[in-house]
Amino acid sequence: MGTVPLLTDDEISPEARAVFDEIRAVRKTDFINNFWRALAHDPALLRATWDRLKVVMAPGALDPLVKEMLYVAVSAANSCSYCVHSHTASAKARGMTDEMYAELLAVVGMASQTNAIVTALQVEVDDAFLA
Amino acid sequence: MGTVPLLTDDEISPEARAVFDEIRAVRKTDFINNFWRALAHDPALLRATWDRLKVVMAPGALDPLVKEMLYVAVSAANSCSYCVHSHTASAKARGMTDEMYAELLAVVGMASQTNAIVTALQVEVDDAFLA
Amino acid sequence: MGTVPLLTDDEISPEARAVFDEIRAVRKTDFINNFWRALAHDPALLRATWDRLKVVMAPGALDPLVKEMLYVAVSAANSCSYCVHSHTASAKARGMTDEMYAELLAVVGMASQTNAIVTALQVEVDDAFLA
Amino acid sequence: MGTVPLLTDDEISPEARAVFDEIRAVRKTDFINNFWRALAHDPALLRATWDRLKVVMAPGALDPLVKEMLYVAVSAANSCSYCVHSHTASAKARGMTDEMYAELLAVVGMASQTNAIVTALQVEVDDAFLA
Amino acid sequence: MGTVPLLTDDEISPEARAVFDEIRAVRKTDFINNFWRALAHDPALLRATWDRLKVVMAPGALDPLVKEMLYVAVSAANSCSYCVHSHTASAKARGMTDEMYAELLAVVGMASQTNAIVTALQVEVDDAFLA
Amino acid sequence: MGTVPLLTDDEISPEARAVFDEIRAVRKTDFINNFWRALAHDPALLRATWDRLKVVMAPGALDPLVKEMLYVAVSAANSCSYCVHSHTASAKARGMTDEMYAELLAVVGMASQTNAIVTALQVEVDDAFLA
Repeated sequence: MGTVPLLTDDEISPEARAVFDEIRAVRKTDFINNFWRALAHDPALLRATWDRLKVVMAPGALDPLVKEMLYVAVSAANSCSYCVHSHTASAKARGMTDEMYAELLAVVGMASQTNAIVTALQVEVDDAFLA
Repeated sequence: MGTVPLLTDDEISPEARAVFDEIRAVRKTDFINNFWRALAHDPALLRATWDRLKVVMAPGALDPLVKEMLYVAVSAANSCSYCVHSHTASAKARGMTDEMYAELLAVVGMASQTNAIVTALQVEVDDAFLA
Repeated sequence: MGTVPLLTDDEISPEARAVFDEIRAVRKTDFINNFWRALAHDPALLRATWDRLKVVMAPGALDPLVKEMLYVAVSAANSCSYCVHSHTASAKARGMTDEMYAELLAVVGMASQTNAIVTALQVEVDDAFLA
Repeated sequence: MGTVPLLTDDEISPEARAVFDEIRAVRKTDFINNFWRALAHDPALLRATWDRLKVVMAPGALDPLVKEMLYVAVSAANSCSYCVHSHTASAKARGMTDEMYAELLAVVGMASQTNAIVTALQVEVDDAFLA
Repeated sequence: MGTVPLLTDDEISPEARAVFDEIRAVRKTDFINNFWRALAHDPALLRATWDRLKVVMAPGALDPLVKEMLYVAVSAANSCSYCVHSHTASAKARGMTDEMYAELLAVVGMASQTNAIVTALQVEVDDAFLA
Repeated sequence: MGTVPLLTDDEISPEARAVFDEIRAVRKTDFINNFWRALAHDPALLRATWDRLKVVMAPGALDPLVKEMLYVAVSAANSCSYCVHSHTASAKARGMTDEMYAELLAVVGMASQTNAIVTALQVEVDDAFLA
């Protein structure tokens, strides 16, 4: 259904294979989801995306579950169907409970509602909010 | 600069005043930000928005700081300048450190990047991600 | 503040002048708003945009006020500050009352909220809705 | 296909059931569309969404058909496939003719076009448009 | 799956038929893609869209392949699945190589990333960039 | 006006200074635009963004001017005011003529128009377009 065929393990270059190997090792699973199989057409983009994703989503001042929920929120706002599915699955795998998911949905909905109303009203920013 | 004038305390209806009183009591400050002063033109929308916001942003399975960061992420994705400013200020007030903010920005950027690439590639959703 | 200077009447080409003359005649005012002054750098785009706008916004099965409110709704969803301002002003000039405006805002907010929640949930379309 | 299974009438809580009963009574049909079946996982969000939708979409200064068309316009701008389908169906059920629909599409297209051009040009707002 | 049925050649009006004839002649193929079959419900919108598209996408200061790539980039940013598919196919038909496509994807991703970060930071425009 | 103060050369860390030095060397100018001064609060994000931007925007199968125009198109679609300004300035610096800019605007407008109409119609993708 995509604009490029999804590549199987047999069809990828050695550079792409090296990234797949890392993904499998880091995630402790043989499963490679379709995003990476589509990116494998361009090993350089695959490598850059994976290398950056590893850094950005690693534990830090925010824990990985919070990061996955932020990813879901942005993906929903950007209407990326694939990304909503994959990062919701990741968030669940990292421990997002039904209650947390319900609150995430409520915040995403509330923010989208007030975003639209504020934009329609063109409310000017309070001086108190400026850095 | 907005499409309606911002109402001062002297210009609002008793219904709007009741909401302002609640906002001041809950937030323990006399400051009412411009969003509410714009909404005060329609006391019913002001009331509905405030009543819902209180529920959605209250502590629950997610803590209020995480909720504020989700709000910032959605507001950035929706290009709402006012909302970015006001919720970034709220997140800072609730304890978002510079490190947390830096990671929030990195996740928002990463998600937006992969959202766009996935959408451009029209990657089909893996069966493993379907509920 | 734009990416091109706004052209005064003295700076525009005869082709752009002809469009300005039409705008003034149709709108029964000497005022030409900044959008047209920016477009005047490209008389062909100015002409195509004005000619199409006249047709699309003319009275038809929908009345011009409804069309202006639809324009505001889309402009808010697309975060176009200028467009929100100009079409809100047009809608008011065509008779949009404070009550109508309040309901427009409420619908825009509600739609944006459920849009985001539906997208986050990736709800599949009911067979009953398919053409 | 969603991120949660759609709940049947047998699977929902009494709180969700009460909302379904109201939807059926108000709409005078036994049909409950998938949005509500997905929301039923969180009876509180289901209740809040339904209660607000009833108020927002009720007849007022704007008639319900105009409100449905506004909903379609926002949903298209936000790329919400499900919402476009469900609210286009609602608008047709409320009397949107082919001519009205054609004009709605033309306005949505025109607004999106000028939104993009204005944003690309960063046209500054005319003083005449400021409240 | 759309909100209107796709019209076959036997179902369209003479006005729509005239546009289909032009599309076939210009593109030197009998194939009419679904966008035009959906638009054929409104021959006036079909005509206006086709007439404008011909002008906008014609060779000029930019070559048609660059225009198609710009179209893909905007369509991805706007999350239009159909448009991404159809204009990626057009770009390939006009000579977009795998290398060019890979770079297009990289730019779209990079721009979306920095767009989001800049919006989250609300960076003010440098004086040097103002016209 | 941003959510963080813009850092002067005297306020940045050695890591940020190293990136500023590179930007100045590559661009052959002492001018550092505000985006980098805001990012300098997080030297790691500053470094990652600059390193990636250099690669993505370098000459390749697409020339840098085409890449800048793609950047402008995406930035307009994403409503990023700052990005529109900065990349339009870059495109002009790389040789974008008035005629090229006019055609860029026309394509961005046309794409946004048909994106919205296609999304409103939910046109299904032709088999011919699938990879």
